[in-house]
Amino acid sequence: MALVVQKYGGTSVGTVEKIRNVARRVARTFDEGNEVVVIVSAMAGETNRLVALADEISEFPSEREYDVLVSTGEQVTISLLSMCLQSMGYKAKSYLGSQIPVLTDSAHSRARIKSIDDKKIREDLQSGTILIVAGFQGIDPAGNITTLGRGGSDTSAVAVAAALKADVCEIYTDVDGVYTTDPRMVPDASKIEKISYEEMLEMASLGAKVLQIRSVEFAKKYNVVIHVRSSFSDKPGTLVMKEDRDMETVLVSGIAYNKDEAKISILGVPDQPGIAAQIFSPLGNAGITVDMIIQNVSQDGKTDMTFTVPKADCKKALKIVEVIAPKINASGIKHDGDIAKVSIIGVGMRSHSGIAQTMFETLAKEGINIEMISTSEIKVSCVVAAKYTELAVRVLHEAFGLNKLESGE
Amino acid sequence: MALVVQKYGGTSVGTVEKIRNVARRVARTFDEGNEVVVIVSAMAGETNRLVALADEISEFPSEREYDVLVSTGEQVTISLLSMCLQSMGYKAKSYLGSQIPVLTDSAHSRARIKSIDDKKIREDLQSGTILIVAGFQGIDPAGNITTLGRGGSDTSAVAVAAALKADVCEIYTDVDGVYTTDPRMVPDASKIEKISYEEMLEMASLGAKVLQIRSVEFAKKYNVVIHVRSSFSDKPGTLVMKEDRDMETVLVSGIAYNKDEAKISILGVPDQPGIAAQIFSPLGNAGITVDMIIQNVSQDGKTDMTFTVPKADCKKALKIVEVIAPKINASGIKHDGDIAKVSIIGVGMRSHSGIAQTMFETLAKEGINIEMISTSEIKVSCVVAAKYTELAVRVLHEAFGLNKLESGE
Repeated sequence: MALVVQKYGGTSVGTVEKIRNVARRVARTFDEGNEVVVIVSAMAGETNRLVALADEISEFPSEREYDVLVSTGEQVTISLLSMCLQSMGYKAKSYLGSQIPVLTDSAHSRARIKSIDDKKIREDLQSGTILIVAGFQGIDPAGNITTLGRGGSDTSAVAVAAALKADVCEIYTDVDGVYTTDPRMVPDASKIEKISYEEMLEMASLGAKVLQIRSVEFAKKYNVVIHVRSSFSDKPGTLVMKEDRDMETVLVSGIAYNKDEAKISILGVPDQPGIAAQIFSPLGNAGITVDMIIQNVSQDGKTDMTFTVPKADCKKALKIVEVIAPKINASGIKHDGDIAKVSIIGVGMRSHSGIAQTMFETLAKEGINIEMISTSEIKVSCVVAAKYTELAVRVLHEAFGLNKLESGE
Repeated sequence: MALVVQKYGGTSVGTVEKIRNVARRVARTFDEGNEVVVIVSAMAGETNRLVALADEISEFPSEREYDVLVSTGEQVTISLLSMCLQSMGYKAKSYLGSQIPVLTDSAHSRARIKSIDDKKIREDLQSGTILIVAGFQGIDPAGNITTLGRGGSDTSAVAVAAALKADVCEIYTDVDGVYTTDPRMVPDASKIEKISYEEMLEMASLGAKVLQIRSVEFAKKYNVVIHVRSSFSDKPGTLVMKEDRDMETVLVSGIAYNKDEAKISILGVPDQPGIAAQIFSPLGNAGITVDMIIQNVSQDGKTDMTFTVPKADCKKALKIVEVIAPKINASGIKHDGDIAKVSIIGVGMRSHSGIAQTMFETLAKEGINIEMISTSEIKVSCVVAAKYTELAVRVLHEAFGLNKLESGE
């Protein structure tokens, strides 16, 4: 007998009929002799409906009240799924975040889970009850309802799995696992059987949006095995877990890309201590996340400073930079929103050399100019012109042997 | 400075625009120097939408989960109204039943309030905050969400007013007060300025559906002054309060009618001890509420037993009676669904004689046959053929001097 935590997202519970499908799958897992705790999101469309009401009422709705509002979405789903299981003859019981409780900090709409009390859940499990828990929500020490931010149900599921020391946390979604790259771009992309937390974090942050980043961080911290799989099939999906020996034999696990960044260059910056802080502190204070930063070798005591920011923040960043540039005697500013970041990811890189080189050569062979490079222990990222994104991903996918045939599927 | 509790029903908060109107009225009450606690219902239509979802999922949804589901309706309203007040520059804060907490028993979907903790509310009021409380919902000792049944928001409002010892509990609705009778039936009906709890209970239970009966019982128990008034005008409505001297000078306060009952007669019943119990115990056990019971004077040791039940339960009641009749050697059963109960109500009856007589004479003058009569300290009810309902109400309304002109409006 295993303790299985399952999480179903909004599209999996989007209609009454889909909720019935979820109930059947939950029931089957229970019938196979497992203890089952289910975390659900709001029915697809429901959160948007609620947010639209808030927007209609107020331009800047209070975050506390916003959380009171949107948390009703999951509350509806847990009750409906519980009713459905009961009508099938199972013992089922719903839990709100506040009833468990899932204790969070007080950062409304982006709260972080601090602790989960497993007492009530364990008692109910022992009585043969299937538990249905509202994802995405918690309660702060003062008793206010909090939410974890969009996609927070993944984090709820992993956190509940961690608190219960569950054998596995199954995240059901509309894809059947994590792929070596975006299958819409590369039809030959193959499903990854096992991937380490670190690799998954790089994949997720670089644009492969299967799992919420924070849920992977949480899983890594508490060593929760995540099984990403499809709610429409029974095939096994992808296990996200602690790095093991097998993984190291794979040089590159996946190719990620991100078209949501823009590049800003400050030209002719005097190369002297403190300049970087003068540039990046105001950006940080304005809440702008700077991703890659490149500083060229200085010539005549001057250097060019290039960095990327989320495209949505580009205008805001430029305004700030335009104020700073004259103060630091920079000679000019350039920016380019037409870029893409393409990355190869793999824990195998740690123990193998020449991987970055293969990447550069592969891109060069296709005439793709590399505008920026950044590397970490388990990834190499290159910024290229946006128009080359598909080509770059496809040739890298092939160059590192990730196509279906070679992966044996 | 007064402490004012206001309650707005589903139609008053049915759209974002209507919520804005409510916010303006709440703000005005606050600006006039009052402390304000607002109780709201779900937006009109929302509860029905949720109930439809439950019905689609399960024929007999669990009451616990049903309460989890439908309580989201009020949760949406409290957050939206709070946001709206905040956007107008006021301090506002929403409270769920579970956050106050409003402690109830565990009778899901028809729970009774046991206690209300006023600590948090008082603290917030002292800081100049307007409080928005979800009506209709509470929490049981085990932490389960409970609901008070349809119309329960009136009871929530009165209970909160009682806990806070509020100066007044204003119930906003789509009519501007309690009338001497149904104004759709008698255009001359006049608004009652003050009515006692006892009279209001009789009016409500007899079909004048302005206030939920339980809320009036609660108000009576804790001596809460209810002000029933319109959310669309500023005119004062009707005060429901403890009986005072003024009230006794009015012989009849109002005329009520109820077309929702049916009459069942068991004929030729042997007049012996225990017969009534044999008839009415099975009906009670089946959850059927028997209202009026008349037993004729016995002739030759036989009597006729006539009683009324809700029309919706008539078939069920007949089935039970058909089983009992042969056992008690009754000679037959008759039933009639085409009846109406017309009642005159007034605390003045206690100290005045001849009022019932005036009623009987007034009906007789119009050729209306009285089929059943029942009386209490403050009311006289007559069952008549349904077709006479309007006529009976109209002539009684006039006979007891309730028309507008005479009431000085």
